[in-house]
Amino acid sequence: MSSRIRTDLAIEAEPLFRSKPSHPESLPGLRCREETRRGFSVSTVEVLDERGEAAVGKPKGRYITLELGALLRREENSFAEACALLAEELRSLLHLPDISSILVAGLGNRDITPDAVGPIAVDNLMVTRHLRSALPEYFGSFRSVCGLCSGVLGTTGIESGEIIAAVCRKVKPAAVIAVDALASRCTERLCRTVQLSDTGIVPGSGVGNARLALNEETLGVPVIAVGVPTVVDAATLAYDLIKDSGLEIDASQLASGAGLIVTPRDIDKNVRDISKLIGYGLNMALHDDLSIEDIDMFLS
Amino acid sequence: MSSRIRTDLAIEAEPLFRSKPSHPESLPGLRCREETRRGFSVSTVEVLDERGEAAVGKPKGRYITLELGALLRREENSFAEACALLAEELRSLLHLPDISSILVAGLGNRDITPDAVGPIAVDNLMVTRHLRSALPEYFGSFRSVCGLCSGVLGTTGIESGEIIAAVCRKVKPAAVIAVDALASRCTERLCRTVQLSDTGIVPGSGVGNARLALNEETLGVPVIAVGVPTVVDAATLAYDLIKDSGLEIDASQLASGAGLIVTPRDIDKNVRDISKLIGYGLNMALHDDLSIEDIDMFLS
Amino acid sequence: MSSRIRTDLAIEAEPLFRSKPSHPESLPGLRCREETRRGFSVSTVEVLDERGEAAVGKPKGRYITLELGALLRREENSFAEACALLAEELRSLLHLPDISSILVAGLGNRDITPDAVGPIAVDNLMVTRHLRSALPEYFGSFRSVCGLCSGVLGTTGIESGEIIAAVCRKVKPAAVIAVDALASRCTERLCRTVQLSDTGIVPGSGVGNARLALNEETLGVPVIAVGVPTVVDAATLAYDLIKDSGLEIDASQLASGAGLIVTPRDIDKNVRDISKLIGYGLNMALHDDLSIEDIDMFLS
Amino acid sequence: MSSRIRTDLAIEAEPLFRSKPSHPESLPGLRCREETRRGFSVSTVEVLDERGEAAVGKPKGRYITLELGALLRREENSFAEACALLAEELRSLLHLPDISSILVAGLGNRDITPDAVGPIAVDNLMVTRHLRSALPEYFGSFRSVCGLCSGVLGTTGIESGEIIAAVCRKVKPAAVIAVDALASRCTERLCRTVQLSDTGIVPGSGVGNARLALNEETLGVPVIAVGVPTVVDAATLAYDLIKDSGLEIDASQLASGAGLIVTPRDIDKNVRDISKLIGYGLNMALHDDLSIEDIDMFLS
Repeated sequence: MSSRIRTDLAIEAEPLFRSKPSHPESLPGLRCREETRRGFSVSTVEVLDERGEAAVGKPKGRYITLELGALLRREENSFAEACALLAEELRSLLHLPDISSILVAGLGNRDITPDAVGPIAVDNLMVTRHLRSALPEYFGSFRSVCGLCSGVLGTTGIESGEIIAAVCRKVKPAAVIAVDALASRCTERLCRTVQLSDTGIVPGSGVGNARLALNEETLGVPVIAVGVPTVVDAATLAYDLIKDSGLEIDASQLASGAGLIVTPRDIDKNVRDISKLIGYGLNMALHDDLSIEDIDMFLS
Repeated sequence: MSSRIRTDLAIEAEPLFRSKPSHPESLPGLRCREETRRGFSVSTVEVLDERGEAAVGKPKGRYITLELGALLRREENSFAEACALLAEELRSLLHLPDISSILVAGLGNRDITPDAVGPIAVDNLMVTRHLRSALPEYFGSFRSVCGLCSGVLGTTGIESGEIIAAVCRKVKPAAVIAVDALASRCTERLCRTVQLSDTGIVPGSGVGNARLALNEETLGVPVIAVGVPTVVDAATLAYDLIKDSGLEIDASQLASGAGLIVTPRDIDKNVRDISKLIGYGLNMALHDDLSIEDIDMFLS
Repeated sequence: MSSRIRTDLAIEAEPLFRSKPSHPESLPGLRCREETRRGFSVSTVEVLDERGEAAVGKPKGRYITLELGALLRREENSFAEACALLAEELRSLLHLPDISSILVAGLGNRDITPDAVGPIAVDNLMVTRHLRSALPEYFGSFRSVCGLCSGVLGTTGIESGEIIAAVCRKVKPAAVIAVDALASRCTERLCRTVQLSDTGIVPGSGVGNARLALNEETLGVPVIAVGVPTVVDAATLAYDLIKDSGLEIDASQLASGAGLIVTPRDIDKNVRDISKLIGYGLNMALHDDLSIEDIDMFLS
Repeated sequence: MSSRIRTDLAIEAEPLFRSKPSHPESLPGLRCREETRRGFSVSTVEVLDERGEAAVGKPKGRYITLELGALLRREENSFAEACALLAEELRSLLHLPDISSILVAGLGNRDITPDAVGPIAVDNLMVTRHLRSALPEYFGSFRSVCGLCSGVLGTTGIESGEIIAAVCRKVKPAAVIAVDALASRCTERLCRTVQLSDTGIVPGSGVGNARLALNEETLGVPVIAVGVPTVVDAATLAYDLIKDSGLEIDASQLASGAGLIVTPRDIDKNVRDISKLIGYGLNMALHDDLSIEDIDMFLS
């Protein structure tokens, strides 16, 4: 049955998901920790070796999950704090010299709301690559950042991975940051959680159409993944609801959930808001000393 | 528990939903029949008296449900056939003289995909009220049709019902056709089913914000409702899945589904397609001898 | 020829437009003045009597024009200052007791960019009418504000004026504020100028489809108009360019400009920005002590 | 002054534009002809040598202009005829073996209406590259077609030309078809004319931001350009209006037209319609024996 579980979050991998009350740190091959920073919960899962990879079903590397639920409570200044937190965590994964250039890839389909996180995040990106030479007096000291929405296989006929690899070879960034929608198994996490990792990403996994991986091996440069869960697979939800009830269930009973997703009622607005947060957090990570107002003005 | 069941379809009311294999015709106060027309399944539930009202939780009247799943199999000419079927059924509910004018109300929120059926259907409506006087040589023989998207309480501060009642008093149509999104309890029905009824509608019930009723009592003219289920309430789905498994469940276990909806993955496209079908079916019902091409040309 | 001149701005009426270097104050039936407030130019034209009406082709009343070009220079805090200025001028025209309720009408067609000012301004409106009763502890002290986008005759079959009059009779506001796109004859004013007046408005005049007037006579309550020029009529522009060159021209030479409009290249963004400003300015005029951040939070 | 004239249409180059009543065929280095096909006017300008290049300001090659004004008269079947005509002319420029694969590049900015022709045409493209292997039983005999919207420099930081060249090297199509918006000097041509050429294209010239050329030299494969004029430069229009009046004008008088464009009032709808026609015409050119209904069904 567990093969039917769909989640892209490391912290939701079966052993971590079920062991919440106990001590996940004791799992072999994994190192986990949880802390509160700037008022938000930050969980880190490090997959250390093959045992860890087997346990969470993800490659070796660091997975940082920010829980931004506080945003919803509209606490004073929480948007700015969340952007700053995202920027700090991104910098900790990127650790690049100031001068290096970055390509941000917005994965997913702009026309399908729960899949539009990547494109909308890129809409909120301060793109500077062309300005450094055109307006050196203003932008000469900015990092070179470019953005690319590669579309989806169904409408381009080309894998996202092929397009990004091709452009990467041309533009030669020092690293790629890939933004995508994810699947979660917890409805409370939808549009409220951001997972960062230094292991790259498989585009489209959030909406069930897994494609070629984007990672250091395929692109030749480090790939930082930034993902936001926007859907819960309906069959996964039903499975978890039933398990939580202490009941047994067999797989065939969930067939009717195939192809269905669970979203918040106000998914359109939620996706827009969290994608803007991603874009602003990226800007703060990639350029120094920016305020929210600076970004507003640049993008307006 | 059944108070947690959310559905706007008469054929999904508890006694009919559970009795499928048996003979629903035998339920007191109800008359049900099912037939196949133009290749589609057509179910009619007539609520005859108070016993029927209690059984299905809906007012006396006729509820016709068209199952348009065949559309998805892309059968030859199926779009045109479905429009023609919808037009025939609408005419059977309207039975109005040719000359009478009609107001079509598109209920719901255009910016929330599963709630946008009404507004998009009105986008596909041939509006003629202003053309009959402006271009009498072309449109003098057309029925007078006008369309109104009343928005939603959260963005206007005014109940849809208040706006439509006010405009109705001004425009004085012979009848109102109200188009809205509904909730179903069967995921297979999402964006594939149309329910027509002669009993009016409560706007927003599909997305869980029930408002003032639109019916002959509140508007002073007959109100035909045209509804399309676009969401399944997550808690309802879980309840039904578990019941189908022969298990018992108590209400509190479903709390985590609150505020969540289940939709098809490609809801944006599905809503656009079924809403166009509604608009075209309305046009064929309201004006004589129109082909799909005629409507294409009018709307282009 | 002057019958071919299309402008909705009082300050662009022929005698004021041509007399710029001289003293417009001396025109009989008009009182004009210009001042700088909060860094923006504010021109007021008062049409005092029939002589003034004949001179500017507009009914008696006050026409205040704010030139917000400074916004484009992205001066520190200029958005907030412009909103505050707009709010002050609106209050001077409204002079209503705190308790009175307001209906804001967003005129025009959301799907035609230069005509979308009204609907987008209403998107940025803090609508409170329904919240005062639903959440009295938070909104009990707010003014009751509702918003209505009436659509356009071509897609509804109903005049905007009919819809607004009908809803007005139902909702009974103390005043109506009608927001619409206008035509200017100066390209520099496009999307940078706001005209306020206490004389009502004729919907659609900006895009050349004049309709029933919205004013105290037709609605029974005072009507404040808020207009933004988004287009210059191509024939008007050509006429003015040629006149400015000291050349003579006759009307027939401009026929090829019929049905064409001149807009800034980035009209989509410009319309979005100025419409947001209108919405925020309305919010500050209608509710006390709001900051930009308060409005951001309410609308988010 | 002529340096201020902005047009991307070969038939509007100064000598051809002014010599209309005379015999353009006699211009050295050019061969021109005009015929009527399927009810539409088709003009061909062949630039034969350096003298022709100097005269029209465009590289050697064939420029075919289809005048599709008849579409607007809504003649019976005119959409299908226009698609078929476009397909025939495209095939005459492409003359490729059946098996060869094609990359269609949609140039321009989807968010700026008059610049959105390329992206919307690609929305209407039957993309098959990924289907030939995934569904060989259905699509094995289709030509391999892929589509790419490269975005614009201002939002990606990367030249369209760089992106397309990079992807081209990866995908290795036999030819590229580049679709873009153009500038015209005749308002009657806006959204009614299509220019095809076998000489490639400079992206963005239509909206005044010329970039790296896309042609056989830069991409390594033949590049067919498909362009639609959507704007007239305001200064160009004024210049032509004045010239047509037999008046003299000097350049400085037109400064106020800088950055302004002239469009039809209903530009949004016009761009959508002509872009759909481009997409459908491309489909008919690239795949055999398709009807409008076949394309409707594929894209739905």
